Amino acid sequence: MSQRGRRTRRHKRPGRISRSEAATVARVTQPLNKLPVYDLVGEEALELIHQTSLRILSELGIAFYDEEALQILREHGAEVNEESVVRFDPALVEEFIAKAPDHFTQLARNPANNVIIGGKHVCFAPVYGPPYVVDLARGRREATLADFESFVKLAYMSPYMHQSGGTIVEPTDLPVDTRHLDMIYSHIKYGDKAFMGSVMSADNAADSVALAQILFGKEQIQAQPALLSLINISSPRRLDDRMLGALKVYARANQATIITPFILSGAMAPVTVAGTVAQMNAEALAGIAFTQMVRPGAPVVYGSFQATTDLQSGAPVFGSPESQQSLYLGAQLARRYGLPYRSGGMFASAKIADVQAGYESIMSMLPAVLGGVNFVLHAAGWLENGLAAGYEKFVLDNELLGMFHKYLLGVDFSEDAFALDSIRDVKPGGHHLGTDHTMRNFRTAFYRAELFDYNSAEQWVIDGAKDANQRAHDKVKMMLKDYEPPALDPAKEEEIRDYISQRKANLLPDASE
Amino acid sequence: MSQRGRRTRRHKRPGRISRSEAATVARVTQPLNKLPVYDLVGEEALELIHQTSLRILSELGIAFYDEEALQILREHGAEVNEESVVRFDPALVEEFIAKAPDHFTQLARNPANNVIIGGKHVCFAPVYGPPYVVDLARGRREATLADFESFVKLAYMSPYMHQSGGTIVEPTDLPVDTRHLDMIYSHIKYGDKAFMGSVMSADNAADSVALAQILFGKEQIQAQPALLSLINISSPRRLDDRMLGALKVYARANQATIITPFILSGAMAPVTVAGTVAQMNAEALAGIAFTQMVRPGAPVVYGSFQATTDLQSGAPVFGSPESQQSLYLGAQLARRYGLPYRSGGMFASAKIADVQAGYESIMSMLPAVLGGVNFVLHAAGWLENGLAAGYEKFVLDNELLGMFHKYLLGVDFSEDAFALDSIRDVKPGGHHLGTDHTMRNFRTAFYRAELFDYNSAEQWVIDGAKDANQRAHDKVKMMLKDYEPPALDPAKEEEIRDYISQRKANLLPDASE
Repeated sequence: MSQRGRRTRRHKRPGRISRSEAATVARVTQPLNKLPVYDLVGEEALELIHQTSLRILSELGIAFYDEEALQILREHGAEVNEESVVRFDPALVEEFIAKAPDHFTQLARNPANNVIIGGKHVCFAPVYGPPYVVDLARGRREATLADFESFVKLAYMSPYMHQSGGTIVEPTDLPVDTRHLDMIYSHIKYGDKAFMGSVMSADNAADSVALAQILFGKEQIQAQPALLSLINISSPRRLDDRMLGALKVYARANQATIITPFILSGAMAPVTVAGTVAQMNAEALAGIAFTQMVRPGAPVVYGSFQATTDLQSGAPVFGSPESQQSLYLGAQLARRYGLPYRSGGMFASAKIADVQAGYESIMSMLPAVLGGVNFVLHAAGWLENGLAAGYEKFVLDNELLGMFHKYLLGVDFSEDAFALDSIRDVKPGGHHLGTDHTMRNFRTAFYRAELFDYNSAEQWVIDGAKDANQRAHDKVKMMLKDYEPPALDPAKEEEIRDYISQRKANLLPDASE
Repeated sequence: MSQRGRRTRRHKRPGRISRSEAATVARVTQPLNKLPVYDLVGEEALELIHQTSLRILSELGIAFYDEEALQILREHGAEVNEESVVRFDPALVEEFIAKAPDHFTQLARNPANNVIIGGKHVCFAPVYGPPYVVDLARGRREATLADFESFVKLAYMSPYMHQSGGTIVEPTDLPVDTRHLDMIYSHIKYGDKAFMGSVMSADNAADSVALAQILFGKEQIQAQPALLSLINISSPRRLDDRMLGALKVYARANQATIITPFILSGAMAPVTVAGTVAQMNAEALAGIAFTQMVRPGAPVVYGSFQATTDLQSGAPVFGSPESQQSLYLGAQLARRYGLPYRSGGMFASAKIADVQAGYESIMSMLPAVLGGVNFVLHAAGWLENGLAAGYEKFVLDNELLGMFHKYLLGVDFSEDAFALDSIRDVKPGGHHLGTDHTMRNFRTAFYRAELFDYNSAEQWVIDGAKDANQRAHDKVKMMLKDYEPPALDPAKEEEIRDYISQRKANLLPDASE
């Protein structure tokens, strides 16, 4: 049990450890990436992308559909035309990008779960945004608040999920105008990990900040952000009023944002990787520079979300070789600018967690690990181009996150790790199964995925010939049955509920609530 | 259509192209890896592994269970003890390793399918060795010659499979003593790609060489190898008589071998990555040095095959983070020695092609691509720790090999690829779907996996809600139905059949054949 694990439990239940909690919530430390990052291109190609992006910013510009944003940009020396298109001098971009921190800590209500975003730190967060859920028992259906709560619980119980996420699924059974309040309440009530704020409007962002202030304290979250929120750029070359409204609220409150061009190459950007990345980089730089104009030093993450377009069906394609290349290039650019980087995830175009989903997920996720991504949204649960969150997929993806935890530790080259004495003792054709070295090390030597079948085919048949999905289905049921909520200060909970009730009364005056 | 593709068809059917053949056999060129390789460790750690391996070779030694081999080793200055354990002076190892070529060309009976092994070239070959096959219609069963022939046909028809492989499956319905003859005949008759020789004994190897001499000519295969054969080292630290018998035959005939320590860490080597790789490297170096003592300059490949042991069930575990690390380290060592490298494959412990198999396969295969592996055996069809070859898995894995072909091309950073004019023409919020640049490039822009579903969930349901396995099953049936054999010189075919009949009569005097 790690230091962090021990602190966690002490924090939550002073003087007492619940047995079932100890069994179901095995916390692990956020992993440090000890591996060398994979660079897809050399300095020259990277400089070419950078310079092309600067040309896009200075010659073509990015549209900002928000009057106040245009005013701020103008005041800081950007050139704004009558179509709300903002052109940036290269020096201006570089000046403001440089003000952003290279890493920051996001607060969790359980301080043991604070996460560091940036540097060599890796943070995994759940899928974000699906309006549907799918599981083996009930099939595909519209997501509800009950589903949302279930996923918060699963993320809370996962030792490999460092964050509770944001809109894990859309609770479609709730009114659009107030569901952000219910989602934030769920993150606070059913988990104790860091979470994301709402970005649907400036008002929603303000609610997110207000609730975080109640939970953490106003001064505390001014010093260190409690919210990390997803600002998508509507590519090509456009930030809309809702996202800009939310961005301003968060930056002013010193809360972290992820500036992410959302690109399906061939539709929102050229069909080429070079063209896509040059445009993506221009868009990200514009958004990031703007955050630093709103508040210099505000924590911000360079994001990339890129898939390709199936030019046959028009649908997005995830797990493609081209997306993998874009991911690596984005990572190299973020490192060049000294910014934390968000990308990757267990992406799949597959509708169910079949072998296609498995292939696609690792084709996206392993590059995220090798490329040095700091914040991996969609690290578990993603199916169907992000339209559905899979219950079984969520816990299966978590098995892989466990593998990546082990993998990121790198290789031990100590004398004991070389085990020369052990190699000496085992005669040619002998075996290492019972050596002292094996006995001393076997517990931690290999990562074992609990939901993966490693038995013989004969044993597998005796056990019911279940595929991975069926095993995962059983696991989900067991986890949700075993779940126990983390303790929450009753006074704070009441204050949070009061705030939410009042806001709902304002936003939905006709509702009975 | 590439140069190679055109030459292919001209060679096979002078003056005439069969319509169905053109439709079913889409040849592609063996890809050049234009990506930077991923190095897991720096020079210092690599040197530490190298030095530890030299210590294992000079202090502990490797057992060679073959009298003639011991004699050869002794004559070249190695120290042999009474237990057949051979100790190598570091200078001796380095001297002989340096004699091996850094790449070579393996002949195929269709010269357009010759493959280059080494350098920046990548060669994908089918699964090797399973005694069972599995498909959706008939389930799991013992493999037969009919299965073997079917897999040769599927490999022949795949544009992403560069080699026909060796023992793709064990034809368990044939006598053990002669089945190698039937397998080689199948490779020759039903495909036209390069293939692997038998390694079960010196006699089997001699048969393989004799058949290659008939097919290619004696002098031709002395100049360039027609066989690439898999010499496994029975770790820890042991080469057995059968493998050494085959090795000597192949090296003397200037045929290529892959020297591969076969290691399940925790059983055949220490539970640690460092210990495993140090031992593996020592074993590979011993085997490779020996090939160069038998015949300096004989083509040889540095092989690594490493999985971990599930210390709960004792079964092998594929797709583990530790295996990935071993693969990268092996690749770095092979590059250090200037040798072609064999590793990787679409490994899975899963019993069927479920989501577990998908995750596991890419966890092994993407590192093979990023790590710069030259020869990837088991690049398609592997299931159940290699005990079963999956028909559906075979064609599904091929879809991924297609992706890797595209991926290995790297990124085009030409002016046209940056598409700045196109980015300029598309207004903020517009789309790139119909631009000149998109229309010019969309056909080759993105790799599309034919068997992957990219439709909407609604369309997917209308199409029968098939999982990837079911789609693959249909594809296998269609391919085997559409298959047409490549032309084979009748005189050569007769000579080959005569040789085989005579050998069978000698080996199985009591059989009616």
